Amino acid sequence: MTIKDVAAYCGVSVSTVSRALNKHPDVSPHVREKVEEAVRELHYVPNTSARDLVRAQTDTVGLIARGTGNLFYPPVISSVERAVEAEGSTLITIHIPSDDDELTVGAELVKAKRLKGLILLGGRFDYSEEDLANIDVPLVLCTFSNNFGTLSAGHCSSVSINDEEEACKAVRNLIERGHRRIAIVLDSVRSHSIGELRFLGYKRALEESGIGIDPELILEIGNFDMHKAYSRSRALAESRTDFTALFAISDSLGMAAIKGLNDGGLLVPEDCSVIAIDGIEISRYCIPTLTTLIQPTEEIGKKAVALLMYMIRSEAIGKQLILETSLREGESVRSI
Amino acid sequence: MTIKDVAAYCGVSVSTVSRALNKHPDVSPHVREKVEEAVRELHYVPNTSARDLVRAQTDTVGLIARGTGNLFYPPVISSVERAVEAEGSTLITIHIPSDDDELTVGAELVKAKRLKGLILLGGRFDYSEEDLANIDVPLVLCTFSNNFGTLSAGHCSSVSINDEEEACKAVRNLIERGHRRIAIVLDSVRSHSIGELRFLGYKRALEESGIGIDPELILEIGNFDMHKAYSRSRALAESRTDFTALFAISDSLGMAAIKGLNDGGLLVPEDCSVIAIDGIEISRYCIPTLTTLIQPTEEIGKKAVALLMYMIRSEAIGKQLILETSLREGESVRSI
Repeated sequence: MTIKDVAAYCGVSVSTVSRALNKHPDVSPHVREKVEEAVRELHYVPNTSARDLVRAQTDTVGLIARGTGNLFYPPVISSVERAVEAEGSTLITIHIPSDDDELTVGAELVKAKRLKGLILLGGRFDYSEEDLANIDVPLVLCTFSNNFGTLSAGHCSSVSINDEEEACKAVRNLIERGHRRIAIVLDSVRSHSIGELRFLGYKRALEESGIGIDPELILEIGNFDMHKAYSRSRALAESRTDFTALFAISDSLGMAAIKGLNDGGLLVPEDCSVIAIDGIEISRYCIPTLTTLIQPTEEIGKKAVALLMYMIRSEAIGKQLILETSLREGESVRSI
Repeated sequence: MTIKDVAAYCGVSVSTVSRALNKHPDVSPHVREKVEEAVRELHYVPNTSARDLVRAQTDTVGLIARGTGNLFYPPVISSVERAVEAEGSTLITIHIPSDDDELTVGAELVKAKRLKGLILLGGRFDYSEEDLANIDVPLVLCTFSNNFGTLSAGHCSSVSINDEEEACKAVRNLIERGHRRIAIVLDSVRSHSIGELRFLGYKRALEESGIGIDPELILEIGNFDMHKAYSRSRALAESRTDFTALFAISDSLGMAAIKGLNDGGLLVPEDCSVIAIDGIEISRYCIPTLTTLIQPTEEIGKKAVALLMYMIRSEAIGKQLILETSLREGESVRSI
């Protein structure tokens, strides 16, 4: 009695039987029941040792970090490493440039290294089930989620902050301190990614307070290049456009913006307040120090591994976990 | 006819025969000749398929990055990744905290993943041959070298800058601009590591110009913690000690020192000039921008992989490669 017999008995493919037995979310409840019934009737015993050989030959999980220069990643990576080690597993980390496809690299890594699970640190926010078809192990999206995608909720896990909500908090902080003309530095308002979500939060905070959106104050730089954040902020300062505050969607963009404003003739925070999101170490030592919402990097890494191990062990479906930031008061924001 | 027969014929161990056939540098020319003669006389054909199975089962090389928060590493890692990919090989990257032992982790990784070669990004400068006994594949030290160790020259390769010479250049730059009272921020003067080498360069530059060493101006902070660099620089500024310049042995320490001097009442560069070594991206956007000697990160990564592949392919002995920095003029140094 082999898996082929079960498949023939049910009139489905071998891979469908395999997925049904492994509680893969892709299989409909109807088919799963049919397969389970066949297994009982035929007294089929899955060959777990063969399955282990193929599926769990290594005790290794993969981490793909997309965007090499991202200063926010190193503490997350360290946290993932410590958590994986505490689980007695091995971690393979791969860094890829931000324009590389994390899913292609991930699928290859899973296959080549026979990974038992995969964590993506950074990636697209708009996966479809088809996109993930080649990744047949538990998957955790780390620091991002599938906001713009079409995945069913249980398809993979994610641990991230609520980008829209946290951006809204950052901008509300500026509004509460009297600012109404608030610029934003971001990659793109229609990125289907972190930029779009944080832009929505910026927009919501302004709308809540009855402040209109001024396209002149939206600095879209296309990516996370510090030099572009610097030159666009500098140009805005030099243009003498009326604004008293700026929200940068990341600390490194915020630091570059402060320098740009400064070189464009605006002192921070005297002439312009700046707030960001991330809380990287080095933004505590710039002049002025950056006021920012700190992402809980330690917790993000730990939870990503916990979610992955939970999916591996119990063959459970995914969970979406949202963590909160905390405000680190720097010297870059003042009340007006 | 097996390798055991060859060993018995020569009166040496099987592993000695193996190393001799693999042109390992540990085997004396005399023994190697004896083994080669025995192979000819006994018509022994090494079982290369078995050897390949054991030795080259994977086409994977390892990279161990020690010191997770080091902002100077990401571009080196990217460069190594691109170069390994261009070679058609796979890279496994592991990050470890700076107090972890890269050799233990390295030896485990080589064994567990059957690596064909290993690159250490950061590590101790004082290895002995015994230390490396468990790493039986080609090894490249990347961004550091074996200055304080007892390895024979060919034992492993290294690619790095000449830390002493480059530190000397940095301090000479300050002296040429009229500074004589020059502080240094470093981990330790007796670290047997980068700190000690760069301190020697600092000392040499001062001595060349007949300037004495003042212990008050040597800020040893024990590690690369930005907060300590900040607080010690601030305390030095507040103490009203006479000095007009500061050399930080890394950019991140330099940025933290600028902030410390600033908060201690000294403007950079008006009251105190600051120079560093590294050339990380973010130090181009601090206020003032940092004057620094840029390490050729792209070249360092590329050459590390080239050296490793050279050792793997030709079973050649190691080479020590020294690259030079280039000066990036920022706003943090002025002539007095």
